[in-house]
Amino acid sequence: MVNQFAQIILASKSPRRQELLRLMNIDFRVVLKEVDESYPQGLTPAEVAVYIAEKKAAAFTESLAGNEIVLTADTIVCIDNQILGKPEDGEHAFEMLSLLSGRKHEVITGVALRNNHSRQSFYDVSEVYFRNMSSNELWYYINTCKPFDKAGAYGIQEWIGLTGIEKINGSYTNVMGLPTHVLYDKLLEMNWLKVAG
Amino acid sequence: MVNQFAQIILASKSPRRQELLRLMNIDFRVVLKEVDESYPQGLTPAEVAVYIAEKKAAAFTESLAGNEIVLTADTIVCIDNQILGKPEDGEHAFEMLSLLSGRKHEVITGVALRNNHSRQSFYDVSEVYFRNMSSNELWYYINTCKPFDKAGAYGIQEWIGLTGIEKINGSYTNVMGLPTHVLYDKLLEMNWLKVAG
Repeated sequence: MVNQFAQIILASKSPRRQELLRLMNIDFRVVLKEVDESYPQGLTPAEVAVYIAEKKAAAFTESLAGNEIVLTADTIVCIDNQILGKPEDGEHAFEMLSLLSGRKHEVITGVALRNNHSRQSFYDVSEVYFRNMSSNELWYYINTCKPFDKAGAYGIQEWIGLTGIEKINGSYTNVMGLPTHVLYDKLLEMNWLKVAG
Repeated sequence: MVNQFAQIILASKSPRRQELLRLMNIDFRVVLKEVDESYPQGLTPAEVAVYIAEKKAAAFTESLAGNEIVLTADTIVCIDNQILGKPEDGEHAFEMLSLLSGRKHEVITGVALRNNHSRQSFYDVSEVYFRNMSSNELWYYINTCKPFDKAGAYGIQEWIGLTGIEKINGSYTNVMGLPTHVLYDKLLEMNWLKVAG
């Protein structure tokens, strides 16, 4: 069995992250706080992802009980060192997906864990390869799946991920929004989780 | 919209394959036929996967209507050129997972498509990297997820996939049991599918 020695608070409204934690058999509850997601100039993409994740976790300072950990994450899509956020509308989504079509890009998820005594953060990088996609395909996807809550305007687990992604090099769950194997490692390392046979 | 110009029959009881086809927005129905999954000596692992997929499709010869296509697949797990099938029991699953622990292996899915006039088959290969896993972790997974219907004794979308897989190099859906991007390509190429904007 999995023994869990802390109450985990997931500060994310992403249904993908919630689903991944459930599949890891981790007990958690969701608590949301509004956080300004701006970041300073001059950071690398990985630094941006970690910076925003840490900012989301810092919003919980002084509001955690003794046995509580807050878990936050930020996922960014990066091509030619340009960070793609969430698209504002259909045209913007089309622009982003046109940029990704036929090329490799990177997905970086920064994660922060914090309780009253300690904190740590980390990130993982995955490479994603899209084949060439037609305008018809991009509009079909945008109109049916409405990827406006997703960095880079796509979800790997949706239609465009299944039909348009040729391969990935790295962690799949990291592309979904949470590098589960690294998170699991850290929870073991901090003695917040233990697996018995 | 996705226009589909053929009735697709999926000859697989795998819930993963059914789910993937649904996410591709493909209409299909499931028809199962018993097929002997033995194969001749001397084939490469990729040849084995395609051979079995073709055998499953051949079971539909002369039973397809004019507008029907049968879709079959076979997924194998391969390490050191040894093919791992489905485990017979818990001990066997433990043996397989111990072999995969801390190492890279290959997952190959062979796919066959067939109607009354034409047929084709293809395969895709993905590399999967497991970290070192403890006996406790392996038994926890085997006891909770009971991976007895899965080649190599694991499902990448289950607990062990999330906590134990460090990275993949290739298609994720191929590891789940259906290389969706290649299937999509073939369906377009055969004019069985067309996407409008």
